Amino acid sequence: MSNNLIEREMRLFSSEPAVRQVAAQLYKSVANLPIISPHGHVDPNLLLENKPFADPAELFVYFDHYVTRLLHANGVPLNEVRAGAEPRQAWRHLATHWIEFAGTASGYWLSHVFESLFGIDYPLTAQNADATYDLIAAKLATPEFRPRALFERFGIELLATTDDPADSLDAHRALAAIPGLEGKVIPTFRPDLYLDPRVPNWSTNVEKIVRAAGLTEPINYATYIEALENRRSYFKQHGAVSTDHGVFEPYTQVLDASYAAKLFDSLLAGSASEAEAREFAGHMLSEMARMSTNDGLVMTIHAGVYRNHSSATHKRFGPDSGHDIPVRAEFTKNLRPLLEAYGAHPNLTVILFSLDETTWGRELAPLAGFYPSVLVGAPWWFLDAPDAAKRFRRAVTDTIGFYRGSGFIDDTRAFLSIPARHDMARRIDCNFLAELVFEGRISLDQAMQIASDLVVAVPRKAFKL
Amino acid sequence: MSNNLIEREMRLFSSEPAVRQVAAQLYKSVANLPIISPHGHVDPNLLLENKPFADPAELFVYFDHYVTRLLHANGVPLNEVRAGAEPRQAWRHLATHWIEFAGTASGYWLSHVFESLFGIDYPLTAQNADATYDLIAAKLATPEFRPRALFERFGIELLATTDDPADSLDAHRALAAIPGLEGKVIPTFRPDLYLDPRVPNWSTNVEKIVRAAGLTEPINYATYIEALENRRSYFKQHGAVSTDHGVFEPYTQVLDASYAAKLFDSLLAGSASEAEAREFAGHMLSEMARMSTNDGLVMTIHAGVYRNHSSATHKRFGPDSGHDIPVRAEFTKNLRPLLEAYGAHPNLTVILFSLDETTWGRELAPLAGFYPSVLVGAPWWFLDAPDAAKRFRRAVTDTIGFYRGSGFIDDTRAFLSIPARHDMARRIDCNFLAELVFEGRISLDQAMQIASDLVVAVPRKAFKL
Amino acid sequence: MSNNLIEREMRLFSSEPAVRQVAAQLYKSVANLPIISPHGHVDPNLLLENKPFADPAELFVYFDHYVTRLLHANGVPLNEVRAGAEPRQAWRHLATHWIEFAGTASGYWLSHVFESLFGIDYPLTAQNADATYDLIAAKLATPEFRPRALFERFGIELLATTDDPADSLDAHRALAAIPGLEGKVIPTFRPDLYLDPRVPNWSTNVEKIVRAAGLTEPINYATYIEALENRRSYFKQHGAVSTDHGVFEPYTQVLDASYAAKLFDSLLAGSASEAEAREFAGHMLSEMARMSTNDGLVMTIHAGVYRNHSSATHKRFGPDSGHDIPVRAEFTKNLRPLLEAYGAHPNLTVILFSLDETTWGRELAPLAGFYPSVLVGAPWWFLDAPDAAKRFRRAVTDTIGFYRGSGFIDDTRAFLSIPARHDMARRIDCNFLAELVFEGRISLDQAMQIASDLVVAVPRKAFKL
Repeated sequence: MSNNLIEREMRLFSSEPAVRQVAAQLYKSVANLPIISPHGHVDPNLLLENKPFADPAELFVYFDHYVTRLLHANGVPLNEVRAGAEPRQAWRHLATHWIEFAGTASGYWLSHVFESLFGIDYPLTAQNADATYDLIAAKLATPEFRPRALFERFGIELLATTDDPADSLDAHRALAAIPGLEGKVIPTFRPDLYLDPRVPNWSTNVEKIVRAAGLTEPINYATYIEALENRRSYFKQHGAVSTDHGVFEPYTQVLDASYAAKLFDSLLAGSASEAEAREFAGHMLSEMARMSTNDGLVMTIHAGVYRNHSSATHKRFGPDSGHDIPVRAEFTKNLRPLLEAYGAHPNLTVILFSLDETTWGRELAPLAGFYPSVLVGAPWWFLDAPDAAKRFRRAVTDTIGFYRGSGFIDDTRAFLSIPARHDMARRIDCNFLAELVFEGRISLDQAMQIASDLVVAVPRKAFKL
Repeated sequence: MSNNLIEREMRLFSSEPAVRQVAAQLYKSVANLPIISPHGHVDPNLLLENKPFADPAELFVYFDHYVTRLLHANGVPLNEVRAGAEPRQAWRHLATHWIEFAGTASGYWLSHVFESLFGIDYPLTAQNADATYDLIAAKLATPEFRPRALFERFGIELLATTDDPADSLDAHRALAAIPGLEGKVIPTFRPDLYLDPRVPNWSTNVEKIVRAAGLTEPINYATYIEALENRRSYFKQHGAVSTDHGVFEPYTQVLDASYAAKLFDSLLAGSASEAEAREFAGHMLSEMARMSTNDGLVMTIHAGVYRNHSSATHKRFGPDSGHDIPVRAEFTKNLRPLLEAYGAHPNLTVILFSLDETTWGRELAPLAGFYPSVLVGAPWWFLDAPDAAKRFRRAVTDTIGFYRGSGFIDDTRAFLSIPARHDMARRIDCNFLAELVFEGRISLDQAMQIASDLVVAVPRKAFKL
Repeated sequence: MSNNLIEREMRLFSSEPAVRQVAAQLYKSVANLPIISPHGHVDPNLLLENKPFADPAELFVYFDHYVTRLLHANGVPLNEVRAGAEPRQAWRHLATHWIEFAGTASGYWLSHVFESLFGIDYPLTAQNADATYDLIAAKLATPEFRPRALFERFGIELLATTDDPADSLDAHRALAAIPGLEGKVIPTFRPDLYLDPRVPNWSTNVEKIVRAAGLTEPINYATYIEALENRRSYFKQHGAVSTDHGVFEPYTQVLDASYAAKLFDSLLAGSASEAEAREFAGHMLSEMARMSTNDGLVMTIHAGVYRNHSSATHKRFGPDSGHDIPVRAEFTKNLRPLLEAYGAHPNLTVILFSLDETTWGRELAPLAGFYPSVLVGAPWWFLDAPDAAKRFRRAVTDTIGFYRGSGFIDDTRAFLSIPARHDMARRIDCNFLAELVFEGRISLDQAMQIASDLVVAVPRKAFKL
């Protein structure tokens, strides 16, 4: 019996031969459609500078906190696999610990990239680590492996980055000016640091944004709001279609403007309570919705994560070092103030992403199954993985079908994993559709249309592209 | 390759041919058993008056908030699909948006009804909307499509409605007097408006129930309790077997009678706090259990929904307009006071329905796996759908097997969907049993017995029929 | 069509023939590996005394609260199936209610034992109850059915019991001295009664542990801590590798030592509040972690159960009488104080067991996917069952693969069910691995290695065996 019992082309499909066949047929019809990536964390300078990737460790290890966290859990010191580590040693750690990635989403994506880009179709081991390193390194030195060449090879039609509201967006402007670059790169307005008074140095951030908006003193609630509006407008002029909000809880509140102004002052003065800071943060999330009713930017809310769980690790390695841990989330009550105020406005789209999958069927689908302004975000982060993505479809489809979602979002800073992630999503959706066909719930024609819509029409509509 | 890959008869079964075969065999043995519907929301006057259905929109669109909410979410104004709308336009909206129902429970039920009652085996489209409307309308004008004819054609052995405790039950009395009507129609005592002081106009409701019970003034806790007892007794005389309780949270409390009496007075006087109102509502749920230990009426508790989430929609369209959104539920701690007081009484049966499916395996099955008085309610509302119903069996069977549940409950006001829903439940149960046979967990003989018991013996025992 | 459609050997495997074949191949490679049982509740005196089991009721009914609770739920009075009941009548209850165990984990284990040890391959019925009773009773009288003979026949390499910290461990010492006993029996340090001031008679327990440690008065925080350290050391000398903590919530706290000492005094004096008692209990859980950083004992935390839900039943039948009901659990925030203080220490291993399966993917896997000191415990109690165990692998593998878990834990006081439970776990793991092979996510070689590691290497590493 051979070692890989399923052809690569049939990955993630049902083991039942008839379903697999239909899944493959559906997949074939969408496999080569362009990639729309309306939410992610790739640095625009990667494409602007277009420098060769330094080595396999820079490419696959240092910056992928999915990879470094699991190596760390399995006993590897973080400093030996994060930026600054000796690259060959970092790579050897990955190779030596390869069996510990078996079955994981990261392992799946890496395998996909190794095979599709580098022809590596064997498992990494301590023995083959160096040879594999050299093989990859040799390819990285070639022009076909420069970021922009890959960008085009991947068929990325649109790539959204995530940007600081005070950012000049120079990189985006420069990218837009490059002649002949296929695919668009657009910014996303990510104002967390400016909206939540519980963020360290919030008052400094407030000053920064007011200044970035070119407004003069005094700093007060009115100038703060105006600054945010200005910067949104600036982002929109540079192609942005959405704002992004990463929150511990999706708490919203709508405060009376004069009360909000007073609260703003006392928060800046440091004399407000923790509870008042929470109210203000909730109010500012609603303010973002209010601004969206004017400028039409789509809101994406990513909720339910306790960031920087280990303070020692955070102190040494900074944020995004692998110890952000999900918590339970609640949307029904938390979102109500925002939706009461702005939920019926035709310009508003709020896409809800949850790390608590129990909310998918219980809260998000029912909300998106009534409010035209609410959509359910695709599985995200820990849940952007084969099994969780399958559960996602089973959790929401009974209630909302296929047209109240965001479309797939890769949400990644691991540039090379983008096609692997979109391919995974397409496979899982096609397989799910094939299963529904065999359950007699949809026809094959409907499945063909939906498979295509999920890749093209749905994200385009959700993000107003 | 044909467009429907699975025969209609094999719908919802496993794609694995051997399992499908056994599921079909089990299903065949129960497909034509009569329908027992011990909990639902059909208006008894529908059967009493027995008027022809006006048109396809009245039948399938206006009153089905599963349908109108999803049309609304997909951009259709509610007023164009709710009662009062132009019927042909309402129907065209449904036809035009048909692909958006693909994969949903509503889409599945509608397809089932379209095909089984009207021979419509093609998907609705903007193009065929009018012709299909006319086809259905023509049939509705025939005697075979009158409500009572359908009632008998559906093989409904028992249909429970949901009724206001102050209701005269005249319709039920009249229905019972119709000679030759096959199948029984019985009322259900639904006292939410009288038990929870947080309901608008609670004090008016209290007066109403006391008066309905024929009691004289003064209105106090004693007359209030007596009135509820009287009305329960009146319902029981008219065939009721259960009381129904729709609550935000299944919170229970047992208060000292003299304290409850004082609290009642201050609640009527409007001088009690929100917290006290909650205590009183929790106490009254326990009082219902206490009364059940006397009169033997089965309690069904439906918990976990935030009603009327959009106040603008509620103001314009009233309750049940599609924006009731589930919330997390908690049963283990909340139900304990009630169970401590009455849980061991042989007359008590409490059936727990939850919109939070995480409670199925974690709390409901363990409770029903110990207390003889507790049963787990079937998947309900958003969860009464192919995938959720499959998860239900997988969530509870490990712990309680098949004999600690309510049997299937259609819980619907969409009269025509009743057979479709029961058929769905039978298919899913038969398929699950077939899977267990192939997992070597039960024998085929056991599967045959259980399949039949789930349709007949289990609901009869649960509802004391 | 025959009644059992699947050969016994293929139980719990996929219904898809190709997957089933591979699952069987994997299973064959691990089916006969020895049993490592590092956490359970078998009484060491059972093996020490090695008396024949009295009768089938003693063996299968009286002490298995999974069985008695479901009989009770289905209408059997507890006193007729608990110790003290007439054995033949207790057995008849089980036989008569056998269909109510169809599909349950208990039904599955019992069937496995009936068949594999007693050759009973038919379902129990009222008719065959007595004959079956006699058949089992006859075998129990033979030497092959003495506990120690079974222990060796089961291939148990290691069996951990759960013991009171004040226990002399005489039974363990005597067992260790038996020449020629294959398999090791080791104690586990279970200090709940000494750590949580909310436990009835906590102050008496405190005195007891201090005295058991041979310390002299006065009883204060220092002697209390020293006593716990001494007893841990005593347990370790007698072979213990772990401490076990059964908690309502996995709340942890780290208090300043002088504050903890004062709190201890006021708790002993009965003058502390409920909230202070909770703080202290949370602090003591962290103290256990601190002690583990010294002595290296592995901590297992079992969280999320409301014990003794029915006080009437508790009063009459004591603890473990079938009405412990799970509740929601929260780990991300609750464990943080402990992990902040000790989570980076190389001597610490904390294994987290949760009765709230929503935490598996959301909290436990992310924690174990970063902290080297955290492992995810196997499905436990209500969740140690075919379907829940399948969901477990699907919930955590995307994030942590196969090497951040505890390995299977039977956690049982039902001695005869040990091989059935381990066999179930091996089957489910092998089937899951076979499914991943057919999803193209792992190779067959990897599956073979992982199947074996899950049975041997993983528990050995987790429990430092």
